[in-house]
Amino acid sequence: MLAIEDGPFSKTDKHCLLVGVITADNSIEELLLDQIDVDGTNSTDKIVSLAKRSKPPSIVMLPSVSLGGFNVVDPYRLNRGVKLPVIVANPERPSLQAVRRALRRHFPDWRRRVRVFDQMGSPTMLRLGHRQRLYFYSIGLSVVKARPVVRGLVHHGKRPEPLRIARILARALGSTPPLKRARGVRQQAGHQGLLSEYV
Amino acid sequence: MLAIEDGPFSKTDKHCLLVGVITADNSIEELLLDQIDVDGTNSTDKIVSLAKRSKPPSIVMLPSVSLGGFNVVDPYRLNRGVKLPVIVANPERPSLQAVRRALRRHFPDWRRRVRVFDQMGSPTMLRLGHRQRLYFYSIGLSVVKARPVVRGLVHHGKRPEPLRIARILARALGSTPPLKRARGVRQQAGHQGLLSEYV
Repeated sequence: MLAIEDGPFSKTDKHCLLVGVITADNSIEELLLDQIDVDGTNSTDKIVSLAKRSKPPSIVMLPSVSLGGFNVVDPYRLNRGVKLPVIVANPERPSLQAVRRALRRHFPDWRRRVRVFDQMGSPTMLRLGHRQRLYFYSIGLSVVKARPVVRGLVHHGKRPEPLRIARILARALGSTPPLKRARGVRQQAGHQGLLSEYV
Repeated sequence: MLAIEDGPFSKTDKHCLLVGVITADNSIEELLLDQIDVDGTNSTDKIVSLAKRSKPPSIVMLPSVSLGGFNVVDPYRLNRGVKLPVIVANPERPSLQAVRRALRRHFPDWRRRVRVFDQMGSPTMLRLGHRQRLYFYSIGLSVVKARPVVRGLVHHGKRPEPLRIARILARALGSTPPLKRARGVRQQAGHQGLLSEYV
């Protein structure tokens, strides 16, 4: 499983952190970092390349298709790019209409950005008991097959475990990837280059 | 549980990353970052202050008392400082004698640094089946009580889960904490200041 989350950012930030967490058995196996442009258009490509840097996950999970502000992920293109099912899951019902309105107001290229929302339509609701709900989209895997997968991933709290872990790390790490280091130094320390894009 | 790990570093690095992972139920709850001096003497104090920044853990776990090269943690002083049991656990039998020899050769203040090893003595061995062993010290908790605690924490691989998670993160994050950000920005983004020492 590869779970994606974006780091916090401010209005003046040009980039924000992109966190990828590889999990197996709901436990972290690998942490991958990159950055995306705030309100940019490179989130889909960045996630595809993140997925290729790791050991092959079974599914890619996102908390939302709007990362780094309005850097909209195209989950269909992502699905084709990684050749894996993509699941977008969140305890909040995504308001694609509100996002669409905001995009229309602020982005000259809003038509291109909202195109994916028409394809996505409405999310599937999953009841987790006690009024808890999870809304998800599944691309490349039928809803019938995705439902037990998603349900089985919720352990602590109200999010699928891989997304919960990615969220904790993204918040703790902030908006930017760790400082660059010289490649030689990193290799000397036995590091296998997870941050190879920064060295 | 608060599990500690140090980041990789090279001979020319003055500092290396200090990672603290708060876990509950063997799952990450919080990530805390700081840095320690390579071959310095501030690891004990840094861990005490890391523990105070988090929600109170039940136990502090270390993979070793030698972090950041020879920045030796005094687990007795740590135990008094955090008022919690301290467990040092590693699949490799710690060679305090080898560390002692190296300290003697390289550090004028070696007597002060090795003092803690005399107190620590030999580790307790825990068999995990299939030739797998774990060596641990327990300070502030009897070995009889610590043994099932340590055993219960080993799930994936050969390390207690909190230490395994801390190790993955320390390696991925490298030797330095993430870049500083303006406090205002961080708060605006809803961040609760885990990295408050850097902003």
